Parts: sequence; structure tokens; C-alpha cells
Amino acid sequence: MRLALVQTRPELGKVDENLAAMGELVESLETDVLCFPELCSSGYAIDDRNRFLDLAEDGGGGPATNFFAELAERKDAAVVAGFPFRDGGRLFNVSGLFRPGEQPVLYRKLHLFAREKDVFDPGDRPPPVVEFRGARLGMMICFDWVFPEVGRLLALAGADLILHPSNLVTPYCQRAMFARAVENGVFIATVNRVGGESYPDGTHLEFTGGSQLMGHRGDLLQELPPREIAAAVVDLDPRAARDKWLTPSNHLLKDRRVEFFPPLARDIRNED
Amino acid sequence: MRLALVQTRPELGKVDENLAAMGELVESLETDVLCFPELCSSGYAIDDRNRFLDLAEDGGGGPATNFFAELAERKDAAVVAGFPFRDGGRLFNVSGLFRPGEQPVLYRKLHLFAREKDVFDPGDRPPPVVEFRGARLGMMICFDWVFPEVGRLLALAGADLILHPSNLVTPYCQRAMFARAVENGVFIATVNRVGGESYPDGTHLEFTGGSQLMGHRGDLLQELPPREIAAAVVDLDPRAARDKWLTPSNHLLKDRRVEFFPPLARDIRNED
Repeated sequence: MRLALVQTRPELGKVDENLAAMGELVESLETDVLCFPELCSSGYAIDDRNRFLDLAEDGGGGPATNFFAELAERKDAAVVAGFPFRDGGRLFNVSGLFRPGEQPVLYRKLHLFAREKDVFDPGDRPPPVVEFRGARLGMMICFDWVFPEVGRLLALAGADLILHPSNLVTPYCQRAMFARAVENGVFIATVNRVGGESYPDGTHLEFTGGSQLMGHRGDLLQELPPREIAAAVVDLDPRAARDKWLTPSNHLLKDRRVEFFPPLARDIRNED
Repeated sequence: MRLALVQTRPELGKVDENLAAMGELVESLETDVLCFPELCSSGYAIDDRNRFLDLAEDGGGGPATNFFAELAERKDAAVVAGFPFRDGGRLFNVSGLFRPGEQPVLYRKLHLFAREKDVFDPGDRPPPVVEFRGARLGMMICFDWVFPEVGRLLALAGADLILHPSNLVTPYCQRAMFARAVENGVFIATVNRVGGESYPDGTHLEFTGGSQLMGHRGDLLQELPPREIAAAVVDLDPRAARDKWLTPSNHLLKDRRVEFFPPLARDIRNED
């Protein structure tokens, strides 16, 4: 399976220009899966819910939705990309998976970061795992990374490769995905954006690029630069992730002593 | 709080010599907590259960238990160290926490690695969190690291600092503990051994040293060399780990969307 990591630099609010730039960037790529960043059609630093609602699309389609669906057809590939999505009066930060000839599958971000909480509704369902060309593709978005439960539930649901559109501003994630890959024995494509944006109050965000594909045993299979628009195609065998035997007698999922793990929702003691 | 990472090189089966070497190594250290490696009294590469049973101690004491308890008194410090432990006919790989004037608290390793499964019984209770000088000390052992549930359950139980005696032979753990620290907002002291040992069939294990203290935000606060016996004392404020706010609106534990996390024991799909 060939996977394209596509690291873009959206201009805030300029959906048509952003989609056109994305189309140009991937024009020559031959690949099975194309993964773009989070909110790659709209940009990120909007703290006015109504403005984001104006940029959002719903199940009826829109410029981004149509572009990704057409791109999937034209490239004969799965396209994964983040954009703002409206469902009635609710607004979600979603990652869409568009496959040729199929309805898109949307994942609504569960763990909102910082000011996203002022703008988006939190996701209302678990992240999906979708079959495509013999591989099982799991979906998460940006800040979901910090919660090991997300990678774990995707691995337990059978994901071979986690597609992880991001708008990262901290240096933590790229370094931490080594552990996410190794602990679950899965491939993880973290696709980040570059460039900077400022909120109206002047707070500046500089996105850290460094998109990467981590192998299921922690090998860094591809890495893009921190500050440049870039795209790379990498070959991988996602089904290698189905071997969870770290040693002949140690299975990453079955070895877990779940009978001693507490309910995840138990009372939190740390602020005594 | 001062914490000593004590990276040793046990000789297989030579308990008295190993304990004497540990005593010399820490003689001049002034500290609140001393952390030694896994199975530091006995050595590691024994695949004969009866031989390990002979080296094990029980609740009635023995050379290692007595040494660690006396060391705790003499240094006026908590001592954390791994050794083989017998409970009736069962044999556990334990980490003991010895405090001046208190009964030791033992953690029985939950996740056994490779040939340990041929020798030890798996732990039969969750890992403890123990108060000491205003800090809450969590306990895990070596291969427990790969299961994010262990660090998470310790953090949920209130651990500020995880003491992690190890006998690491892979290069994974030290690199992955960045994620364990950041995702839980806890300090983690991974104390590994150096040197090599061979099983009777000739299989050689080379331990990777590189003991380290990760800070609760992923700063590497101390690191020992990969191949040398070494000890270092580092200052830390374990209570800083009680601040789980990664941003003003993102709490590492409370933000978790536990209602969408599956039961940890659910059927595993990955080998379809």
C-alpha cells in the first residue's frame, strides 16, 4: 500500500485557494491513500463559532467535501482530510475518509484542544475503523494523540494504520507517537500543517510540520520537514500490524492484565 | 525531594556480593528515595524455576529484604528495589518499597517478559501507590511500561512519581517513557541495569542501562550512561505532577471521553 503524507499551509478562511493548492500539490502523486492535515480547507485560528459555521459543510456537500470526493475518484485512492462539519446546529471538527464509489466516513474529533472548545461541539461517537484495499484504517485527529485510550481502542477494533490529521503547535506529539505505535503495534500517519495563524486577540500559533509515518515497531518510515509545504509517498504493508507478538511469548493486546485495570472513568485522585 | 537512580551490574546468583556492591555504590548519597533495578539482588537470566525459588525470599525476610530494610533506616530514605519473592509455592518478580519504620510494600510484576513466564507467577493484584514525604509513589516493573494502562491506572490512583525498576534489553522503553510521562503528567524513574548475562542455552542478554528520570511534562531530568555502573541524585518536586492542566482548558485525565472508550477486555479483532 502506498500512502501519501501531504503537509500543507492553509490560508485562514480561503477555502477555494486552499483546495486548489492541495490539488496541485498531489497532482503527480500515485498512491492508495492521501492524508491531509486537520481543518486543511478552512484554516484553524477562528474563535468565532459563527464564522466557523459559515465555513462548515454538511451532509449535503460543499466545496471541500466535493473536492475530496472527486480527488478520491480522480486518484483512485482513499482521501483523508480534516474540515469543519455542521450537523443541524452542531459544529464538529471532523476527519473525512473518502473512497472511490463509497459514501464518506466522518470522524468527529473527541478531544478538543484549547480554544476549539469555544467553537466546536465535542465528538459524539467513537472513532471508526474502515476497510480499504485489505487494510483497516483507523481515524483520529490531532490532540486525540495524548490519550492512549484512543490509540488503544483503535488497535482493539483492528486498525492496522491510524490516519491522524493534525494542526500541532506543541513539540510533544511527533516524539510521543513512537510509543503509540510500539504499544499498539500499529502504523500511524501523523499529518501536520505548517505556517502560522493568529487569533483576533493576537495570540499566535506556529504549526510544527514534521509530518511522519511511524512503523508498527517504532521505525520512523517517513518524516517531512518542520516548516515547508511538502508531500511524500511511502510504501508500507499495513497487514504487518496484525502481528502483535513482540516476543514469541508476549502479545501486545492479549498480555494485558485487564482484570487488574480499573474502570477508566473511576474517580480521579490527583487533585487531592 | 531527592531521588537517586542507582544503575547496577548484578552478578548472576551472587546475592551477597550484589548487595555489598549496592551498599558501596550508594554509601555517600544523601537522598529521600533510592531506586535500584529489577532483580538486582539475584540477577536475571535464570530459566530454572527451582533455582530462582532458592534465591527468592519470603515475608519472613532474607539477605535482600533485610539489606533493603536496613538501608532504608541507615539512609533515612525510601528504598525501591527488585528481587525474587516466594509466597507459599508461588514465585513472583517483585519490586519492594522499604521505608524507615514501616512494613515493606511489595508490587508483584503483572506483565512478565519472555522467559520470565517460564519461571515466575504473574502478579495477582494491582500496582500500589504509597505516600512518602508528601509524595505519592507508584510502582511498576520493566515490561509493564509497554502497556499504557499501567501508567494510566497509577496516575488515576494519584501517583506523582512512578518508580520503575527494570532489566531492559530492547531500545524501546527509554524512548517511550516520554509519552508515558506526558500523557499522565507524572514523573517516571526508569532504573535499568548494565552488563550481560546468558541463559544456559547460550542466549545472551545485554542490558541497556540508560536509566532516566522523565519529568511530568516530558523533560529528561537525569540520564545515566548505557554501559556503566552509575548513580545520580536528582531534585524534583513530585507534587508538580498534580497539575494535570496541559492548557488552561485541557486536563489530561478529566478531558478523556471515557463514555466512548470500550471495555478494555473486549474481543480483540487484530488477528482476523
